[in-house]
Amino acid sequence: MRTETLGPVDFAHSLLLTDLYQLNMVEAYLAEEMHEHAVFEFFVRKLPRTRGFLMAAGLEQAVRFILGARLSDDEIRWLKDCGRFTDRLIDAVAGFRFSGDVDAMPEGTVFFANEPVLRVTAPIAQAQLLETRLVNFLQYQCLVATKAARMVLAAPGKTLVDFGLRRAHSGEAGLLAARAAYIAGFAGTATVPAEGRFSIPIFGTMAHSFVQAHDSEEASFLAFAEARPDQTVFLIDTYDTARGARKVVSLAAALAEKGVRIDSGDLGQHAKNVRAILDAAGLTKVSIVASGGVDEYVLQKLTAQKAPIDTYGIGTSLVTSDDTPALDCAYKLKAYAGQPKRKRSEGKAFWAGATTAVRRHGAAGIMNGDTIGKADEDLPGETLLQRVVEEGRLVRELPTLADIRKHAGRQVQSLPEHLRRLETGPAYEVAVSPALEELTRTVDEQLTQSQ
Amino acid sequence: MRTETLGPVDFAHSLLLTDLYQLNMVEAYLAEEMHEHAVFEFFVRKLPRTRGFLMAAGLEQAVRFILGARLSDDEIRWLKDCGRFTDRLIDAVAGFRFSGDVDAMPEGTVFFANEPVLRVTAPIAQAQLLETRLVNFLQYQCLVATKAARMVLAAPGKTLVDFGLRRAHSGEAGLLAARAAYIAGFAGTATVPAEGRFSIPIFGTMAHSFVQAHDSEEASFLAFAEARPDQTVFLIDTYDTARGARKVVSLAAALAEKGVRIDSGDLGQHAKNVRAILDAAGLTKVSIVASGGVDEYVLQKLTAQKAPIDTYGIGTSLVTSDDTPALDCAYKLKAYAGQPKRKRSEGKAFWAGATTAVRRHGAAGIMNGDTIGKADEDLPGETLLQRVVEEGRLVRELPTLADIRKHAGRQVQSLPEHLRRLETGPAYEVAVSPALEELTRTVDEQLTQSQ
Repeated sequence: MRTETLGPVDFAHSLLLTDLYQLNMVEAYLAEEMHEHAVFEFFVRKLPRTRGFLMAAGLEQAVRFILGARLSDDEIRWLKDCGRFTDRLIDAVAGFRFSGDVDAMPEGTVFFANEPVLRVTAPIAQAQLLETRLVNFLQYQCLVATKAARMVLAAPGKTLVDFGLRRAHSGEAGLLAARAAYIAGFAGTATVPAEGRFSIPIFGTMAHSFVQAHDSEEASFLAFAEARPDQTVFLIDTYDTARGARKVVSLAAALAEKGVRIDSGDLGQHAKNVRAILDAAGLTKVSIVASGGVDEYVLQKLTAQKAPIDTYGIGTSLVTSDDTPALDCAYKLKAYAGQPKRKRSEGKAFWAGATTAVRRHGAAGIMNGDTIGKADEDLPGETLLQRVVEEGRLVRELPTLADIRKHAGRQVQSLPEHLRRLETGPAYEVAVSPALEELTRTVDEQLTQSQ
Repeated sequence: MRTETLGPVDFAHSLLLTDLYQLNMVEAYLAEEMHEHAVFEFFVRKLPRTRGFLMAAGLEQAVRFILGARLSDDEIRWLKDCGRFTDRLIDAVAGFRFSGDVDAMPEGTVFFANEPVLRVTAPIAQAQLLETRLVNFLQYQCLVATKAARMVLAAPGKTLVDFGLRRAHSGEAGLLAARAAYIAGFAGTATVPAEGRFSIPIFGTMAHSFVQAHDSEEASFLAFAEARPDQTVFLIDTYDTARGARKVVSLAAALAEKGVRIDSGDLGQHAKNVRAILDAAGLTKVSIVASGGVDEYVLQKLTAQKAPIDTYGIGTSLVTSDDTPALDCAYKLKAYAGQPKRKRSEGKAFWAGATTAVRRHGAAGIMNGDTIGKADEDLPGETLLQRVVEEGRLVRELPTLADIRKHAGRQVQSLPEHLRRLETGPAYEVAVSPALEELTRTVDEQLTQSQ
């Protein structure tokens, strides 16, 4: 088989996996000897129409990348051989070692438009080189965690499991989706390495191919129960759902506590029929798993119908965030060499200088309004950002996924009632501090004079 | 920093990156000594509402996975330690070596609902173990290649470049999106390793942060031109697009042939203004690059307006296929031990047995109707599938990306006029052979009797 010039990419750490313009700009920074510290912030410009809040996720992968970013020998060779870059650039990238600070919202934190989710303060070339992949890591997990949080809100008391690996946009995406969904309250995933990598519970049922490969549905059920006694969920819709349920009944004497899965048709109606068949046979402990085309709106409908479904397997809608598969987000220069900066491009302007966000809480801990202010401002409320990396060293141990999940659960519990509904209503109040407005005005005036 | 139990995943080859139920089913196949050959086919059940055709892509990654699928030592250890699996299962997965056949449509081929894109014929446990990741590899690149082909059709004569890495659902997705877009006719990508991995031309401009970090726009333009004389595209919308263009004019004497980039606002209107400013100064060779919110509908509108834009940078809409971020696709068992199989689940039934697809062409080579038939049937027309792997060995060298791109270009040229438009009209005719209908009826009758 033809071999590839460049070896496999280390997706967790490769500094070469970036946009060409980052390397071009770093060439110029080096040529101009621009080594001062810059402040960059990752934020979402605008909430998608169908989202009342967002959930932060992906910080662990972002921090591992920031602290472990490197080039492989292959990549260094390619940079030399391609003839595009100076030795100065190649040495700088190959010798990359992050020496700056990172402040960020803990994963699982609820956030809103224009709030800084992650702030990098570092020599400008370092902060610039990280841009593409930081956006890539943070955007996707925020997207999936937010989608998953909506699903959890739409199906109180139900067990939700990620079945999405096959429809994710790559294997890496599938693995990260399992992580983000778990943070937001999913019970687990079908993706096997999520257990070894992230200690996420894994779930498995059976596929239609297994049923079909046997001479009869009964034979497939018996064989599966024998081979996998601890985790038998029978898939009963391969030929006819009600008949499939009756076969489980006829076999149940020989079997222990089991489940059945329905993967097609009107899930609510099928679940009612199947529940009745199982209950009539005394199999009240056999649980029902439903999958196929489930999203938060389907969950809401089935919850309202009191469909007797215990567990949902959710794939495509979760891992692609299908109604809004991207966030209008950015990682933008906010200051250089101590000077606050601002971009004024149409529809893309933002507050000048390093910022922070604080949150106030009302009765019973319910969120009661945020304020975006200058990073060094003393604002009333809980500060949403924490120092994670200082002068290139991790200064706060990354929390376990279990702790992140608990934090996310508390965040969702503190959402005001109108944000807990799927339909977006009035926006949550995010104010801007007078000092930040004043600073932005000043920077604007300077820009108007100088440009 | 806390370490992870399981090391990094080899996304190109890991057999563990799958759904738990695949391992459960293989346990059962091994317990039952079910070692006969199965036929599985990957196909799309239904075209998305906004797609008149699909484009095959991802076969190279699929074949590299099929032939190179393996477990790392770490993964074998995890399988042993987790206590879920028998030694028999672990030995089978750790010793995986594909011994079957693969038939597939060459990448770049246009295809339609229910046509087999890839067929695996192998001992059932092998074919089953490959399912999750084969769907994952094929779905995403088909999705992006199709979206990119629509963009190429909407902007004849324009240079389209993938700018999407940051908004892709992972780094792996970004890299694969660059490949799929190039197959479909994009000129290249901003994603650096796409050149070393896939020999795809890479393009780079400059970012707002670079402009902002300098004391003035002029200073940033001059510095950039000096550091990167060969590839200077000035970003002119950081503060005011028209003023940015006039600054390029004032500097142009000192500069060679350059380009400018507009990244916000009404791209068509700005391009007209900027073109006029440049032309009035005699800078007719300075090209205009536009980016920001571009998709195939924006391209169609700007093309109709004759907007003087030479190159488009396209990100989010391309790499997420934003209007339809997933395909209703499946990898299904079609036969086992020589017996054709069929699933009858509501809305998910399909033709029984191994299938193939042929295509007829009319005047000037325009596509004139496909037929899906039995795999061994002699049907009039060009057979769309080719044998790629036989008894575990590659029997057809994987084509170069340049050749795949040429094939895709010829495929798009042969599309009937109504499929070349963005708006979907009457569906392309895909018939089913009488022999395949007859076989499916027979299998159905047997199922009705036996179930």
